[in-house]
Amino acid sequence: MALRTAQEYRNSLRDGRAVFFRGQRVADVTEHPLIGIAVEHAALEYTMPQDPRWRSLAVVEQDGEIYNRCYKIPLDSADLLKRSELIAATTREGATYPVLIKEIGTEALFALRMIGSLLAAAGKPYYRERVDRYYRYCRDHDLALAVAQTDVKGDRSLSPGAQEHPDYYVRIVAERDGGIVVRGAKVHTSLVTNANELIVLPTRLMKSGEEAYAVSFALPVNTPGLKLIASPHGSEPKDPIEHPISARRKMMETLTVFDDVFIPEDRIFLKGEVEFAGPLAITFVRFHRFTAVSYKLPLMELLAGAGYAIAEANGIIAAGHVRDKLTHLAAYHSIALGLLQRAAAACTVEDGVAVPNTLLVNVAKYHFAHNYHQAVQLVQDLAGGLLVTAPAAEDLSSEATGEYTRKYLGGRKGIDAQARLRLMYLIADMTASDYGGYQEVLAVHAEGGFEAEKIQTFREYEFAPVAAYARRLAGI
Amino acid sequence: MALRTAQEYRNSLRDGRAVFFRGQRVADVTEHPLIGIAVEHAALEYTMPQDPRWRSLAVVEQDGEIYNRCYKIPLDSADLLKRSELIAATTREGATYPVLIKEIGTEALFALRMIGSLLAAAGKPYYRERVDRYYRYCRDHDLALAVAQTDVKGDRSLSPGAQEHPDYYVRIVAERDGGIVVRGAKVHTSLVTNANELIVLPTRLMKSGEEAYAVSFALPVNTPGLKLIASPHGSEPKDPIEHPISARRKMMETLTVFDDVFIPEDRIFLKGEVEFAGPLAITFVRFHRFTAVSYKLPLMELLAGAGYAIAEANGIIAAGHVRDKLTHLAAYHSIALGLLQRAAAACTVEDGVAVPNTLLVNVAKYHFAHNYHQAVQLVQDLAGGLLVTAPAAEDLSSEATGEYTRKYLGGRKGIDAQARLRLMYLIADMTASDYGGYQEVLAVHAEGGFEAEKIQTFREYEFAPVAAYARRLAGI
Amino acid sequence: MALRTAQEYRNSLRDGRAVFFRGQRVADVTEHPLIGIAVEHAALEYTMPQDPRWRSLAVVEQDGEIYNRCYKIPLDSADLLKRSELIAATTREGATYPVLIKEIGTEALFALRMIGSLLAAAGKPYYRERVDRYYRYCRDHDLALAVAQTDVKGDRSLSPGAQEHPDYYVRIVAERDGGIVVRGAKVHTSLVTNANELIVLPTRLMKSGEEAYAVSFALPVNTPGLKLIASPHGSEPKDPIEHPISARRKMMETLTVFDDVFIPEDRIFLKGEVEFAGPLAITFVRFHRFTAVSYKLPLMELLAGAGYAIAEANGIIAAGHVRDKLTHLAAYHSIALGLLQRAAAACTVEDGVAVPNTLLVNVAKYHFAHNYHQAVQLVQDLAGGLLVTAPAAEDLSSEATGEYTRKYLGGRKGIDAQARLRLMYLIADMTASDYGGYQEVLAVHAEGGFEAEKIQTFREYEFAPVAAYARRLAGI
Amino acid sequence: MALRTAQEYRNSLRDGRAVFFRGQRVADVTEHPLIGIAVEHAALEYTMPQDPRWRSLAVVEQDGEIYNRCYKIPLDSADLLKRSELIAATTREGATYPVLIKEIGTEALFALRMIGSLLAAAGKPYYRERVDRYYRYCRDHDLALAVAQTDVKGDRSLSPGAQEHPDYYVRIVAERDGGIVVRGAKVHTSLVTNANELIVLPTRLMKSGEEAYAVSFALPVNTPGLKLIASPHGSEPKDPIEHPISARRKMMETLTVFDDVFIPEDRIFLKGEVEFAGPLAITFVRFHRFTAVSYKLPLMELLAGAGYAIAEANGIIAAGHVRDKLTHLAAYHSIALGLLQRAAAACTVEDGVAVPNTLLVNVAKYHFAHNYHQAVQLVQDLAGGLLVTAPAAEDLSSEATGEYTRKYLGGRKGIDAQARLRLMYLIADMTASDYGGYQEVLAVHAEGGFEAEKIQTFREYEFAPVAAYARRLAGI
Repeated sequence: MALRTAQEYRNSLRDGRAVFFRGQRVADVTEHPLIGIAVEHAALEYTMPQDPRWRSLAVVEQDGEIYNRCYKIPLDSADLLKRSELIAATTREGATYPVLIKEIGTEALFALRMIGSLLAAAGKPYYRERVDRYYRYCRDHDLALAVAQTDVKGDRSLSPGAQEHPDYYVRIVAERDGGIVVRGAKVHTSLVTNANELIVLPTRLMKSGEEAYAVSFALPVNTPGLKLIASPHGSEPKDPIEHPISARRKMMETLTVFDDVFIPEDRIFLKGEVEFAGPLAITFVRFHRFTAVSYKLPLMELLAGAGYAIAEANGIIAAGHVRDKLTHLAAYHSIALGLLQRAAAACTVEDGVAVPNTLLVNVAKYHFAHNYHQAVQLVQDLAGGLLVTAPAAEDLSSEATGEYTRKYLGGRKGIDAQARLRLMYLIADMTASDYGGYQEVLAVHAEGGFEAEKIQTFREYEFAPVAAYARRLAGI
Repeated sequence: MALRTAQEYRNSLRDGRAVFFRGQRVADVTEHPLIGIAVEHAALEYTMPQDPRWRSLAVVEQDGEIYNRCYKIPLDSADLLKRSELIAATTREGATYPVLIKEIGTEALFALRMIGSLLAAAGKPYYRERVDRYYRYCRDHDLALAVAQTDVKGDRSLSPGAQEHPDYYVRIVAERDGGIVVRGAKVHTSLVTNANELIVLPTRLMKSGEEAYAVSFALPVNTPGLKLIASPHGSEPKDPIEHPISARRKMMETLTVFDDVFIPEDRIFLKGEVEFAGPLAITFVRFHRFTAVSYKLPLMELLAGAGYAIAEANGIIAAGHVRDKLTHLAAYHSIALGLLQRAAAACTVEDGVAVPNTLLVNVAKYHFAHNYHQAVQLVQDLAGGLLVTAPAAEDLSSEATGEYTRKYLGGRKGIDAQARLRLMYLIADMTASDYGGYQEVLAVHAEGGFEAEKIQTFREYEFAPVAAYARRLAGI
Repeated sequence: MALRTAQEYRNSLRDGRAVFFRGQRVADVTEHPLIGIAVEHAALEYTMPQDPRWRSLAVVEQDGEIYNRCYKIPLDSADLLKRSELIAATTREGATYPVLIKEIGTEALFALRMIGSLLAAAGKPYYRERVDRYYRYCRDHDLALAVAQTDVKGDRSLSPGAQEHPDYYVRIVAERDGGIVVRGAKVHTSLVTNANELIVLPTRLMKSGEEAYAVSFALPVNTPGLKLIASPHGSEPKDPIEHPISARRKMMETLTVFDDVFIPEDRIFLKGEVEFAGPLAITFVRFHRFTAVSYKLPLMELLAGAGYAIAEANGIIAAGHVRDKLTHLAAYHSIALGLLQRAAAACTVEDGVAVPNTLLVNVAKYHFAHNYHQAVQLVQDLAGGLLVTAPAAEDLSSEATGEYTRKYLGGRKGIDAQARLRLMYLIADMTASDYGGYQEVLAVHAEGGFEAEKIQTFREYEFAPVAAYARRLAGI
Repeated sequence: MALRTAQEYRNSLRDGRAVFFRGQRVADVTEHPLIGIAVEHAALEYTMPQDPRWRSLAVVEQDGEIYNRCYKIPLDSADLLKRSELIAATTREGATYPVLIKEIGTEALFALRMIGSLLAAAGKPYYRERVDRYYRYCRDHDLALAVAQTDVKGDRSLSPGAQEHPDYYVRIVAERDGGIVVRGAKVHTSLVTNANELIVLPTRLMKSGEEAYAVSFALPVNTPGLKLIASPHGSEPKDPIEHPISARRKMMETLTVFDDVFIPEDRIFLKGEVEFAGPLAITFVRFHRFTAVSYKLPLMELLAGAGYAIAEANGIIAAGHVRDKLTHLAAYHSIALGLLQRAAAACTVEDGVAVPNTLLVNVAKYHFAHNYHQAVQLVQDLAGGLLVTAPAAEDLSSEATGEYTRKYLGGRKGIDAQARLRLMYLIADMTASDYGGYQEVLAVHAEGGFEAEKIQTFREYEFAPVAAYARRLAGI
């Protein structure tokens, strides 16, 4: 068995997990008005592999085994490109809302595998063996995965041990027969409300003395002591016409609490080896930002596409400043796509795993992220104030107001009020709603913020040869 | 009588006006769940003048008459500065949500007065007389005003007469004894659902042959045939802790339909004089953008202030990149404020009215608008991903989740989880919600978009002397 | 014969060509104090192929023939990448000063070949045959080439025929037995003072009625009537230590006058076929901008490298803002390089010629060009005011001043005054000299300006599918 | 006596001063081919006060005394505005090249006076008395002044005492009867080659233990031991038509060496009071940046004016993108001017001296500086490649080439080749020459670099009230 159906996925979520929404325990996440949307959205990763249009992209058949392509360990550029295409295709089907129910988890598995090899080389072969077994388990059961990495951190200028209390970073509080007990909390955990398994990674490098914080492990989401406090952001009920994306799409975020959770030995992937915490965190991110740019592509396509469609509808497509703005959106998208494809082509194979070029991935991610708000501004500019002043969906058909709305809100010849307003609703949902805000904050913070991307770029760029070139030209 | 109470204002809105929300007629705007919020918000302009803290700023006593300062015709820089201070103070009290229930209308009145003088000089003294009478009427009854300017426009590349139907711009369809009948629709009409009077201005210059479109007038909001189709943007019910601004503040926007509305002669301020349509539109904007920068000041203060407060709460205030970002926010605000104050000081007195320096006002407005999204990005960057992943307000006190939320979401020493989360909620409401989207779209489009501001800057800047300087230095 | 020596190249330039400098005829360009520098600089393209370090990159051996790689018609991505590498390597050896004595000409030949095929398909096979012969002639004689494309244009808002005189665009003024007579002038002609052959292309699309202007041809530089008026920009004698680049490197620019020049039939590649003028101009540019980004790479390397080296010398490498600026320079370079490599990989083979992806090439070129001045600013910022206030090279050794200069202008430990000053001189030469100005103007204008790059990006980006995606999500 | 003539100024410079150029002692600065230009340029501050057109602006008559306005201690906004106008007017006459031969020195005197009062309050009244005497002496003799502030600094990450040798910052090496002996060197000293007096200020705050470095004093330029090593930047001879600014204008920069120079007591203004070194440095800068923005105004005027004139000459003034670029230049200038004027209006009177608003001055300076390179890019864009490819001045009249140059390089109707080329020469001189580079580096570094301006902005902006506003809205 390796490909589950959407129904199997849904059923698997009714397992007694401790999910809380607005202070209340959620009885069944699949039935919850908000989390239920997230479940259906994530189910895309179970329906697409069954769909003949996507099967060849979404499914791998290898040595008689069939499994989801997300689980494919990339061996070369071609694998990376296919993976990237699948991520983009899924997000495109998901109307630009990230899906990622297998992507982030497999990135963590790739990173754990690579660090496992290093740990093996350092005399601890068992971590890598556990990772391999766990990987096979997840892949063969086609599981939905989430990853918890970012600790709550308390005072962000202080290290784990210098905080007001010792639990601001997840840590081992006890060792028991056959396992450990962990305590702490992670923030920004995407997807876990509707995943089967949760993989936990350290968030940063650790130093000697911080052994308890150098910990990585995995656990089923219904493990006792694991408590998921869901964010209500974007939870207000939405009209599906006015919110064509966010009324039907959702990814949950949680505060993930480890209230003295027991982790059995076979699920522990790092335990006190402080010198591997940083490399593990960073190796994960090397894959994670490649995924990030991949899943942002449909969003960039939509910015350019919606900008073009609404400019055309408004009758302004021939204006010089409009073309200038559309050109900017086109370049914005093209740079990210071009760098991503080059990053895949320029991958390095490390321990048998193809890793996309880290410099270019970081540059591409920063390019996307740093310029996102400006792209939003351009699309809002092309659309016009109707984004926030247009009548409601009901006003298109209402006996009292429909006549006026239809008469007065048409655009250029051939674009009736309904078409124009629906484009406005789309752009408003994408840029001027809580979903728009969510995407802005994701751009700034998801997969590491600006400063993280800049630090990584500084590290990866080879200054030595260019500085030598400068010195040579200077004659020194 | 010249200062109404908030209650008088509320009562005055129960006048049979034709307001529609989601296709349904609204029986009483003051009781409507959304528009009622807008009424209470606008009522600030009736409560503040009664409040000793604001009275001297908000009220003018002149020649034995007492009236709201918004109605004060500015005679000099000092008047402009006072007006600007009042606008800023009101918006500050209004938690950065624009109030403007008297500001925009009085700007229109100032412009109508000035154009009225030009019309008088051109042989038609009656327009100016009507404006004067109407101004006194509004001022003496302390009326709430709205202005409708932007026509629906259809194909924006075509002139009024070249559209698919002739009603894409508001026009005179008939002349009757003692008045005219107008038809058409205006978009982006702020405030009119809860104003007493509506003033209508042309949206652009008109050419010979477009006489029917060169029309300006005023009317009570309950005039038969006037139909207000309210926008539902931001209408979802909001938790007041998670949305400290937008749960309690609102400005309504409408599609304003003139379904063959009769306007009596005494309320007609332009009727066919095409050469005055453009000047009227632009003169209004000369005041309007001065107001715009004034009411944006509290928003810019809040961006800098919230950025500072959350950076401090997160324990990152000493980091170099954080100071850099805060400095950017400080400069962003200071430039707008500095230019606004200079624009008031450098006003020109035209026909007895002090007009703020148009070049500087446009530059200040463009500075605010063009850089707004970037400022948002900076504040989101300083705050962190909790903006969209934080638990709910209920999770601070819930028996099930409160303990965890309070333990894990504290910030630097002295900042508990509640304080930190409330700052996050504030910033999320301001930047990552439908209100955040509303402000972004306002920045881009309100009071004229980027291109309008740039055209005005190009026109106002004196290229002749600097080009002469260049030619002199070039020796030609 | 196919590889000339530098000496053969020099000798070939003593051919009676009509070159003028500051109003005077130049007797021998190789001996001229300024043009002589340009000759030696261009000679790099004759010395590098003879140099074992570069031979395999710079020389192609094919079917028993040996020729310079610039003449290699690119058949696939690999050919494009090799070509790009050679261009970068040559410019790197040339200390960031463009060399290009074969590159631009071969780009023109590739374009002429492709348009020749289209003309053949349209019933005129002879153009393509002439191009083929001419290509073999140039390649087999290892000739140095220049291209003249930009007409002087007069009033740039008017078409060729609407100008004050008909010669503002190069045109055919007569047809004679076996050829044509051309008149007019081209500006910004690089290299022609020291090339063997000049290829002339139309600068823009031509319309019916402009047949005389739709002309393309080639001629030896010493053809009677061809007059080259060299630009004096950067002609002041320079101290070689203070100007480590520009004292020894130069590319000449000319106003190229066609004073009724006879062109024999076999060198005519377009004659009146107006519909092919635009495609020819654009096809050339498709190659030309790929070359452009290739030869800018060493400049971007030097910006990053010099920035790093001087920051280190100044002892500020650990400062946060310094790392931020260096990261920006690193990203600046990496984006251009990544996009260029992707553009080669994503080439299309058209009429047997591999053409780099036009969208990505334009985006990469625009990225370089638009951000160049900012990169200069960053490097100047890292270096410090000594760029323009430092003592002279003589002050390092002078008896009167050497002691002070050496004592006081050292940097961090290990960096003596000489090393630090030489880095300052390098950066000043690169960014704060007439050479620096030259590079700025090249960034803005060479190979087509910003607007040209934006228009091309707008054309090449596929808006249709992304607009369809937007409409699909909007439900229309 | 209080107003010297230009000839008196010139004569005063023949005083045996030790000026070195390219390692050689300069016998007479007024006769030196480069420094002589600087002398004549600086002489503007002696000719303008004699010129009836400028006399009322440049000269102050007070209590029967007549002196140059630069020496006027500003008592209020009006004084600051006049001072600013004079600086702008002088630089305008100086063709955008800074003159400043009295400005910088008087800024230092104002700062010394204010710090002198603080020292008096701290029990040391003599410093203030010395400053007052020295101020009268300079003013009454209408002296030309220079200021040396920036130490050479060695490793910029280390404090004065931690350097490789103790002389990287100017320091007191001995106390003698009636004075002190100082040693060290200052860089970036403008004007001193042709000033009468040099005022020395500390460059940064000093800490306990750094008493020897906390020193301020003044001395005549011909004092034994003072050695001025002039920078050769921009020293190549220039054609006056091709370089209409820099062929006739110059400001010298030096490495200023104090080779055990004796300073008599009456010229010592700080001696070991470490806690006053930082305040003195910063107080000077508060005036200095106000001057900076003032003298940058003509440069910004010229950017806008030259951009406009050349766009018109090229026939592109009506293009949308051209207007956009000109609008940007107009706004660039207007923001700086507006903020400067507001900074003067919002001055604070401290110890009887009007100090322009420090926040706005820093913001204005940063605005100018940070956007300068972009403004240069825009002007280069508007001008075209002829900036660096145009024929020489001689080619306009040469018998051999004049005919072609005149025929082919005309612009739109009415603009002949000479006019167009002279505009090109002007813009090239301003942006694509060593003078252009000088202005770029000045923008980045003069009067303190970007980081200094940002730090000052961060300090001056009042975060407390806006953070309180944020907390109030957040409900905490």
